Amino acid sequence: MNNKTQLGPSTIMFPYPTVLVGTMINGKPNFMTASWVGIACSTPPAISVAIRPERYTYKGVVENQSFSINVPNSKLAKLTDFCGIYSGRDNDKTKLFRIFYGKLNNVPMIEECPLNLECKVIHTIEVGSHTVFIGEIMETHANEDCLTNGKPDIKKIDPIIYATGTRQYHKVGEEIGRAYKIGSKD
Amino acid sequence: MNNKTQLGPSTIMFPYPTVLVGTMINGKPNFMTASWVGIACSTPPAISVAIRPERYTYKGVVENQSFSINVPNSKLAKLTDFCGIYSGRDNDKTKLFRIFYGKLNNVPMIEECPLNLECKVIHTIEVGSHTVFIGEIMETHANEDCLTNGKPDIKKIDPIIYATGTRQYHKVGEEIGRAYKIGSKD
Repeated sequence: MNNKTQLGPSTIMFPYPTVLVGTMINGKPNFMTASWVGIACSTPPAISVAIRPERYTYKGVVENQSFSINVPNSKLAKLTDFCGIYSGRDNDKTKLFRIFYGKLNNVPMIEECPLNLECKVIHTIEVGSHTVFIGEIMETHANEDCLTNGKPDIKKIDPIIYATGTRQYHKVGEEIGRAYKIGSKD
Repeated sequence: MNNKTQLGPSTIMFPYPTVLVGTMINGKPNFMTASWVGIACSTPPAISVAIRPERYTYKGVVENQSFSINVPNSKLAKLTDFCGIYSGRDNDKTKLFRIFYGKLNNVPMIEECPLNLECKVIHTIEVGSHTVFIGEIMETHANEDCLTNGKPDIKKIDPIIYATGTRQYHKVGEEIGRAYKIGSKD
């Protein structure tokens, strides 16, 4: 016997990341907050994001077959929350951030976000209420001051965790140990 | 002009979750550490995980068309790291954890992990080096002592973040603010 409670089929998972998905819609940049993202492949580098067809961003991803994933830091939590509450249909989000473009030209990215991935759609999977877009990551843009020895440093990036259940945003906490080391037999 | 550095196409993202993927292989339960997971849909509830065909776990997922996602807490960091370093081909992982089974019978889950998702494969996408399996979440098992008012509480669950770049495991940190509230116009 164990101490488990069954909560039924659910989307409960920890931790969720918190990102801003960027697309061009009707010629204007737009950003939607999302937590349902995950890396999908290393060669080619790819990332998946689940989006409801009802969302304004869905239109932009389908039309352009491209999107950006922008990783906000904790200072951007309020603006990030704004982009999750309000649709670009009724709210112009072009003035919220400094926007830049990279290799793909039509993929808006957020300068204030320490990390930005430019993605081209390579798979579209209609799962049910959500469609999963798998995007090949064509370029990675990082703030120089968030690198340590040329590599992105999670403490400097200061990403946002979204906690389902309690519905709180959290910072990343203390180190537990080194990966590929603390579990080694050696 | 902005202060961005281009790191090339990459799988850099923050935060990565850290989970243990459970499958039956040759009649024995096995667990593989993974960070490349993401929620894929709400109706039906679904989660995606990217697995290389070379991995032992791949065989189990393909044969059974099912898997579990187990969310370890920070106390399980060493065992979690072990399951990421060593393959079940050469290392019997059946004695590492207390194992239980739920609705699907052939999907092993870890009692010590505060959250467990039982999944049935509904989509298989060959992306490149990795195959993405989208699993319908058939049941959610949670430790009773990790709930607050019946909902999973991230502080009690104490999940592990994996930081690519610095290759460190981290705990979840302090609260930044309430989602769907701090960005509200009201």
